[in-house]
Amino acid sequence: MTAKFIVLEGLEGAGKTSARDTVVAVLKELGINEFVFTREPGGTPLAEKLRQLIKQGEGDEVITDKAELLMLYAARVQLVENVIKPALKQGKWVIGDRHDLSSQAYQGGGRGLDANLLMTLKQAVLGDFVPDLTLYLDVDPEIGLARARSRGELDRIEQQQIDFFQRTRQRYLQLVEADEKSVTIDANLDFSEVNKQLRQAITQWFQRQK
Amino acid sequence: MTAKFIVLEGLEGAGKTSARDTVVAVLKELGINEFVFTREPGGTPLAEKLRQLIKQGEGDEVITDKAELLMLYAARVQLVENVIKPALKQGKWVIGDRHDLSSQAYQGGGRGLDANLLMTLKQAVLGDFVPDLTLYLDVDPEIGLARARSRGELDRIEQQQIDFFQRTRQRYLQLVEADEKSVTIDANLDFSEVNKQLRQAITQWFQRQK
Repeated sequence: MTAKFIVLEGLEGAGKTSARDTVVAVLKELGINEFVFTREPGGTPLAEKLRQLIKQGEGDEVITDKAELLMLYAARVQLVENVIKPALKQGKWVIGDRHDLSSQAYQGGGRGLDANLLMTLKQAVLGDFVPDLTLYLDVDPEIGLARARSRGELDRIEQQQIDFFQRTRQRYLQLVEADEKSVTIDANLDFSEVNKQLRQAITQWFQRQK
Repeated sequence: MTAKFIVLEGLEGAGKTSARDTVVAVLKELGINEFVFTREPGGTPLAEKLRQLIKQGEGDEVITDKAELLMLYAARVQLVENVIKPALKQGKWVIGDRHDLSSQAYQGGGRGLDANLLMTLKQAVLGDFVPDLTLYLDVDPEIGLARARSRGELDRIEQQQIDFFQRTRQRYLQLVEADEKSVTIDANLDFSEVNKQLRQAITQWFQRQK
């Protein structure tokens, strides 16, 4: 089997970090041992600088929605070209904390940027490079944000109003529904139940791979 | 007359800074007194951060052509929305050191990025916002780079091979030829001759404005 790119997606507090541990544990049981972990935005020196600018802004300057989107894609293309593709080529599996779907959901659904612009940008920047499997951890924003809040201070994105996250979630659900390489996990449930769903999803997906 | 956006374009060492002084002097003679000066990439706190990343990179990481382009447009949309449009609205004339044409010429001509991608991005990010006048200072790269070199160390962009600048110049010439709001100035000539051409171009343009 060639190395694969698996992405964890979901709102703040959906449980992506715990889910990653489960993904790795299940894949290890299935005989996969070499992993590279990425997060977006970020994961290269330049992309981490961009992450910082996106998350914290610069002074009091308002970041326009379009500039945010362009910086996200600049970070993404650096990560894909300099980290993800080389790792896959070397036979290492890549487990990503967020990828393109986040921009489609947050910037498209949440911020309301034009879906055509988003798809054009995705196509222009990434071409036909897509994850082999996306595990979307679906969580009610009220639940997710309460979890995120209990972890500490919220950043510029996490301070959005609740309807921003409602719109983001709706877009996530639409896009995952339409994509055969994506699976929805009910992340409102208990950790053990989420774990069970993840195990099942990964195992079933794995059996279909070559 | 409403406030206008005038842009100076050209290769390294074309003489954009001296040209700016001439533009301002001529406009003052014509009764214009309030100016805002911009440079690209840059001109807002966030855009200046992006400028630094574009010019110097981050560590040893290779900056992909697409990431460079996306960062340039992120910086540009910040400058246009947060500085240029508000200034014009307040009746201040904006004199820009570079604008969108630089990306079309350097990233399109020099780097060879797809012209469709560039036009799509321009349209998506800037819509129909264009300079009222672009003064393109055309210079042979050998002459321009010798001037730039005599000013000190060259940055990441300025260290490109000579054919990069030849391609950039060719694209500049094509685009300026096709755009009725752009004028080519022969910047290979002596300063006094360039000055004369600039005066003439601005004065003729000014008489046609409302």
